[in-house]
Amino acid sequence: MDKCAQPFVNNKKRGDFMSTGRFVDLIQKKRQGQTLTEDEIKKMIEDYVEGAIPDYQMSAMLMAIFFQGMNREEATAMTLAMRDSGQVVDLSAIQGIKVDKHSTGGVGDKTTLILGPMVAACGVPVAKMSGRGLGFTGGTLDKLESIPGFQVGLSQEEFFAAVEKNGISVIGQTGDLAPADKLLYALRDVTATVESIPLIAASIMSKKLAAGSDKIVLDVTTGSGAFIKDLDQSKELARRMVDIGKGAGKETVALLTSMEEPLGRAVGNNLEVKEAIKTLQGQGPEDLEEVCLALAGMMLSLGKGISYEEGKKEAKEALDSGRAWQKFRAMVESQGGNLSYLDDPDLFPEAEVICQVQARERGYIFSMDTEKIGLASGILGAGRETKEDAVDFSAGILVEKKIGDWVEAGDCLATLCTGDLERAQKAEEVYLNAVKISGEKPEPVKLIVDIIA
Amino acid sequence: MDKCAQPFVNNKKRGDFMSTGRFVDLIQKKRQGQTLTEDEIKKMIEDYVEGAIPDYQMSAMLMAIFFQGMNREEATAMTLAMRDSGQVVDLSAIQGIKVDKHSTGGVGDKTTLILGPMVAACGVPVAKMSGRGLGFTGGTLDKLESIPGFQVGLSQEEFFAAVEKNGISVIGQTGDLAPADKLLYALRDVTATVESIPLIAASIMSKKLAAGSDKIVLDVTTGSGAFIKDLDQSKELARRMVDIGKGAGKETVALLTSMEEPLGRAVGNNLEVKEAIKTLQGQGPEDLEEVCLALAGMMLSLGKGISYEEGKKEAKEALDSGRAWQKFRAMVESQGGNLSYLDDPDLFPEAEVICQVQARERGYIFSMDTEKIGLASGILGAGRETKEDAVDFSAGILVEKKIGDWVEAGDCLATLCTGDLERAQKAEEVYLNAVKISGEKPEPVKLIVDIIA
Repeated sequence: MDKCAQPFVNNKKRGDFMSTGRFVDLIQKKRQGQTLTEDEIKKMIEDYVEGAIPDYQMSAMLMAIFFQGMNREEATAMTLAMRDSGQVVDLSAIQGIKVDKHSTGGVGDKTTLILGPMVAACGVPVAKMSGRGLGFTGGTLDKLESIPGFQVGLSQEEFFAAVEKNGISVIGQTGDLAPADKLLYALRDVTATVESIPLIAASIMSKKLAAGSDKIVLDVTTGSGAFIKDLDQSKELARRMVDIGKGAGKETVALLTSMEEPLGRAVGNNLEVKEAIKTLQGQGPEDLEEVCLALAGMMLSLGKGISYEEGKKEAKEALDSGRAWQKFRAMVESQGGNLSYLDDPDLFPEAEVICQVQARERGYIFSMDTEKIGLASGILGAGRETKEDAVDFSAGILVEKKIGDWVEAGDCLATLCTGDLERAQKAEEVYLNAVKISGEKPEPVKLIVDIIA
Repeated sequence: MDKCAQPFVNNKKRGDFMSTGRFVDLIQKKRQGQTLTEDEIKKMIEDYVEGAIPDYQMSAMLMAIFFQGMNREEATAMTLAMRDSGQVVDLSAIQGIKVDKHSTGGVGDKTTLILGPMVAACGVPVAKMSGRGLGFTGGTLDKLESIPGFQVGLSQEEFFAAVEKNGISVIGQTGDLAPADKLLYALRDVTATVESIPLIAASIMSKKLAAGSDKIVLDVTTGSGAFIKDLDQSKELARRMVDIGKGAGKETVALLTSMEEPLGRAVGNNLEVKEAIKTLQGQGPEDLEEVCLALAGMMLSLGKGISYEEGKKEAKEALDSGRAWQKFRAMVESQGGNLSYLDDPDLFPEAEVICQVQARERGYIFSMDTEKIGLASGILGAGRETKEDAVDFSAGILVEKKIGDWVEAGDCLATLCTGDLERAQKAEEVYLNAVKISGEKPEPVKLIVDIIA
């Protein structure tokens, strides 16, 4: 008899691998397209974090989920179990309704620096903890730290006091938020199970729900620079995350925003801070301002119980009146940042190597592979590959021509900033490959693609 | 930026997990439904056996294969790589065309004991190495070892000499055949990836191809007692295995045989040997004889280049003339077995507890859950759950009523043989649940369902 034919023997053997029930049966259940119960999912996450389920079983489960999906209840149960795997932040000591904002990732995304002060200026407290993260361009913390003296490592008391005083503080994530997500993500990363909409949604939302805000605005990017490039899939991700947020009892709204080209013109840490300053002074790129007003408007809508249009109007008033800019200054001052850099951004150190990417042909900028532009920025030194890597704050890209712009051969497409000529040469090739020039004029980019509530 | 959005970082990180290329990309390739190349599959198996691919990546790959399948070339490449992971037996020192037979598993399957002598009696050498295996009823080796004195641990020289002398020898598998299969099967067993037709086919065929025969006859069982119960899936498995055998350059034919009820009447080691003796003496159950003649006929067809019908005819002549029986005696004598047990099967020890399962209602035996009957046999002690378990040679079941038989309430359905009354009671319940009695007369069981060449 072939060994294939002995379920009764295998049962016994399988038992050795998991003291806490037959996890293989749960894999099979999902593999067959059945729905896992809340209890099953909760136990799965708990056991995995405890090490009672080995990686080789969890990776098979993740692949089964990739193919069979998860319904709304399953994804919510998974998210809550992941949230509860670690600390859940308590922001109740801070007065008012706290609205968090999360982006699924983009190139040139410095919106937090701009909309945080806008929202705070309108009376909705911004108590934001940012993860440091890896990436092409550094995270929000890196951008803030490119302001000399800026401290992101506040204690909880200092953090609460700063929010109390200024209505805003952005600090580094403390504590151990959703450790199950860290474990699962590391496994997904090496088992080709990252690209599952319910798993992505659960990953993001578990961290957001652990971060303690009352309501959540999601910036779900879509297009060539987004993690999810396909519009329908981006909508699906947004819908999933909104459902999970609501399932967890928190009002959640998603804005679908375009990442068909970098947001604004600056990509890289102090370049982005300088652009954020300009924007807060009313002189920023139009697309960046529009997206910031939309996200801030939605945060105000949730935080104040007003309409989205009213929220956008209030945010615009905070911008135009200079109140948002004053909030930013107050936050930077409160967290030890040197205000002279804000007053005179030319003080920010410049990169040693600055060179221009020139168009090789004439025509309209028809499309941009924004992920490749992010990659070019990483090559220039703006991001980090491992947690230990140092970020070059002055490295990055200034995008001079965007979709719909006309260029002649030899025109400057972008300015590259780096510490190393070789990196510049590599990044130039990547950048040129990322930009498609055509005689045909493209459709204008629609920035706010959809709103999913 | 969310950590999801950093392919360039992940690339780096993934690299740490595998020195020999990015296996995660291969998982993704299969996940997306693309075809893996022969080289990719070969390297995958080699690396996995060497430990360069961790279990958590391989289990994700196996689940991706479960959902996306493998085409003929992929399954063949995988089989050959698994075959080549260990020793490949060289039987060339034995004269003639060696034809191996393999069954995908059944309850009451003692065909090897009967068709081996038939085939050998017709001049085709039988040099069979059997795995010990786990299971409900013991394997071929256990059945042979229930003959006192019978030795299955022959050296290669003794084995070849025995085949040379008698035309037949059945021994325990020596050497390390297809170790990749052992590793992969253990992983599949705990990750719910056993039930994949191409993986099952590759598993079986890798061992068969390593066993060194020139040609292969496959007995692919189908129905309630088979590993694959669905007819279409059984056909698909047969087709897959035949394709792989041919792809490896070995003539391969599969017979699809019914496992809707136990084969013959005896289930359990010395019970099956006694039934095999009866069958070799021309007094065995009709179904068992028919299946043995079919399989022997196909082996003779391949071994002698004659038709299947001619093969069956020759096998029948070997049976009727007593030459097959003499071959069996010669083999047993040659391997140290006590011939007096063959001449007087009443010498075989009887179980201490013998009890009858009585019908609780009248009607036709409409169907049998043959897997459950195997399970009952396991409960009685006929099989082993771990390699260390001792087999109770006298434990098992004599099936008194089979599909289509009429029974009155109280009639004996089966005789249970065991060493322990409690086991008998448990097995009785299982047996009763396995047998469906109905007023409706069932269709007769078709034994040879199909032939796939």
